[in-house]
Amino acid sequence: MQLSQRITNITGGGSDGWDVFYKARRLISEGTSVTELTIGEHDIGTDPAILTAMDRAATGGHTGYAIVPGITSLRKAVAARIQDRTGVATTYRNILITPGGQSALFAAHLATCNAGDRALFIDPYYATYPGTIRSVGGIPVPIPTRAREAFLPQSESIAAEAAKGAATLLINTPNNPTGTVYDRETLTGIAETSIAHDLWLISDEVYDTQIWNGQHISPRALPGMADRTLVIGSMSKSHAMTGSRIGWICAPEHVVDHLINLATHTTYGVAGFIQDAAEFALAQGVELEEKIAEPFRRRRDLAQAILAGQNTVGMIPSQGAMYLMLDIRATGLSGEDFAHSLLDAHHIAVMPGESFGASAAGHVRVAMTVDDSRFAASLQTLVDHAISLAT
Amino acid sequence: MQLSQRITNITGGGSDGWDVFYKARRLISEGTSVTELTIGEHDIGTDPAILTAMDRAATGGHTGYAIVPGITSLRKAVAARIQDRTGVATTYRNILITPGGQSALFAAHLATCNAGDRALFIDPYYATYPGTIRSVGGIPVPIPTRAREAFLPQSESIAAEAAKGAATLLINTPNNPTGTVYDRETLTGIAETSIAHDLWLISDEVYDTQIWNGQHISPRALPGMADRTLVIGSMSKSHAMTGSRIGWICAPEHVVDHLINLATHTTYGVAGFIQDAAEFALAQGVELEEKIAEPFRRRRDLAQAILAGQNTVGMIPSQGAMYLMLDIRATGLSGEDFAHSLLDAHHIAVMPGESFGASAAGHVRVAMTVDDSRFAASLQTLVDHAISLAT
Repeated sequence: MQLSQRITNITGGGSDGWDVFYKARRLISEGTSVTELTIGEHDIGTDPAILTAMDRAATGGHTGYAIVPGITSLRKAVAARIQDRTGVATTYRNILITPGGQSALFAAHLATCNAGDRALFIDPYYATYPGTIRSVGGIPVPIPTRAREAFLPQSESIAAEAAKGAATLLINTPNNPTGTVYDRETLTGIAETSIAHDLWLISDEVYDTQIWNGQHISPRALPGMADRTLVIGSMSKSHAMTGSRIGWICAPEHVVDHLINLATHTTYGVAGFIQDAAEFALAQGVELEEKIAEPFRRRRDLAQAILAGQNTVGMIPSQGAMYLMLDIRATGLSGEDFAHSLLDAHHIAVMPGESFGASAAGHVRVAMTVDDSRFAASLQTLVDHAISLAT
Repeated sequence: MQLSQRITNITGGGSDGWDVFYKARRLISEGTSVTELTIGEHDIGTDPAILTAMDRAATGGHTGYAIVPGITSLRKAVAARIQDRTGVATTYRNILITPGGQSALFAAHLATCNAGDRALFIDPYYATYPGTIRSVGGIPVPIPTRAREAFLPQSESIAAEAAKGAATLLINTPNNPTGTVYDRETLTGIAETSIAHDLWLISDEVYDTQIWNGQHISPRALPGMADRTLVIGSMSKSHAMTGSRIGWICAPEHVVDHLINLATHTTYGVAGFIQDAAEFALAQGVELEEKIAEPFRRRRDLAQAILAGQNTVGMIPSQGAMYLMLDIRATGLSGEDFAHSLLDAHHIAVMPGESFGASAAGHVRVAMTVDDSRFAASLQTLVDHAISLAT
């Protein structure tokens, strides 16, 4: 009587890289005031109008089982939004509603990776990627990138690992943790490599409404890609609905048909009143999405101004998403040691780059998730702390 | 580029046995009035007081990420309820909150079955059991039972399959689809067999508040079983919260620790406002649970009275849960043919026994999920229809 290899191996046996986060939470629970710039959670709650829509749905009687694929009107709304943004013909039959983006990531890998298959992803990466792959019995293979190339993946690096055999490639643009937005050249290289090596492409686009420079391009829209791309979407970041746990997969119809079978056996659907709330939120259009993205754009501008006055702390060009990736190698410390030092000295919590993979060593990720003045003051303190360490 | 074997094999290649259900839904969508006695959904919605608690939590600000294992106060409430009912020492560290009972069933199997492991369950069975096992790459092995033994599993049958090698045994009491409640002797045999063959026992107890005769016994409370039992619980049936998608697994602490890792990578937790609603609902105690169970008890009494007047249609002794399992073999039809015939002739939809496994052939499952007078009239029509076919 043993637990399965899959479940005992999810963390890969190493540290989960969240020591600084847990230390910050411990300090807070002991009464210390800590500025948390760690997780990707807005400093606002879900919009009251969305909550009113949810309550209206629930008290109106939408409290029984919702159909497993998601209610058709929401699937249609998601499909229309994707078609509008990408130009790719999309119907509700391309959409499965899931209880959050993480659930969509898991289902996408379960659908495309057999046990023992190699599954590629770009390093640095969102913290759950390797464990998600291990949860389905796959072998996580990080593709290294370079800070001086803004952590953009190079096709040759992907091709080199794909040539050894792989089922899938997982990418994320706009990127968490780096804040970069993949340009057309990068995505074209990814698409060509996916086709050449017959990979499924899993494209995590949950930050698609948070673009500060350039343009979000969905790789599903590139030639030959709609048939091999599974797009992960979510209401969490775009609509400040993190706690509602609702997202989707957009994929070829025959893949969605199988994903519906999987949903029947893993989730049995998503709460109907939450789906109604999501449909209401989407109907508010880009105005609401821009309102939710705006504070991060503002804080990113503040950050550029603060960092402009020095050259100890470098910043990866911030083009999207709610994070900054800062280069603190001039301090001589690892990202982890710097983060501990900043927390100990100033009660400011940031995430070590190493938490997101070896490529981000010597960096820290800063979530822009506190109000502007506190954010600016904290970032200035971080810079001053780095300068004091570097001299 | 192929889909994974797991996901393409979920349905096992056969019919899903839900043709009658879909035909009924099609008739309804075409405007025909159909009495649906098919799925396990109450004819009431979620209690307004629970929805008020949910709205209060959401508008009060509980809209961000909830911690992945479930909020501690809810885990404690679930643990206290289980300890009260079973006498087994249980703390919040034995509890993982999940987005529904189905999610708990999936996680329990993912945690205990390696790919290729045989996973046992009792036939007839809840419709998702085989697919849940296939979703984690396990091999579903039904253990046949006999109608004349009220479909109670025999230890020798379980032992015979366990002897060929198996990781898990999944049971369900009170039982869906049969309405039987496993007695102490049956459960003791299951416990001894689980220990002798070193099986994990996965005990689906989502109907534990719906007992019409006898007593619900959780096998976790039997000697030597707490260390090898994973109990599946849910708010769906006990609190008419089917659409809220909230349930739990109660398991040894070290198993829960791993299940939390899995949850981080499959669901990232359950909506906080739904957890608050569940905590409110549990705090209402047995009074609310009995109010929700009462209509099924009443209709089961009605059914006994209706069936007492004839001997064409037999009934498996109905001891719990919201279903009746009726023996219609005297009509000479299969359960499926009888169900189609009843739907065609009288617009009453019931589930063929065959949908729940080979052991229930020649039976139909009747969900007691319409109001008393309509239920009684429909059941009388079913009986009359059977008599007309049998003569």
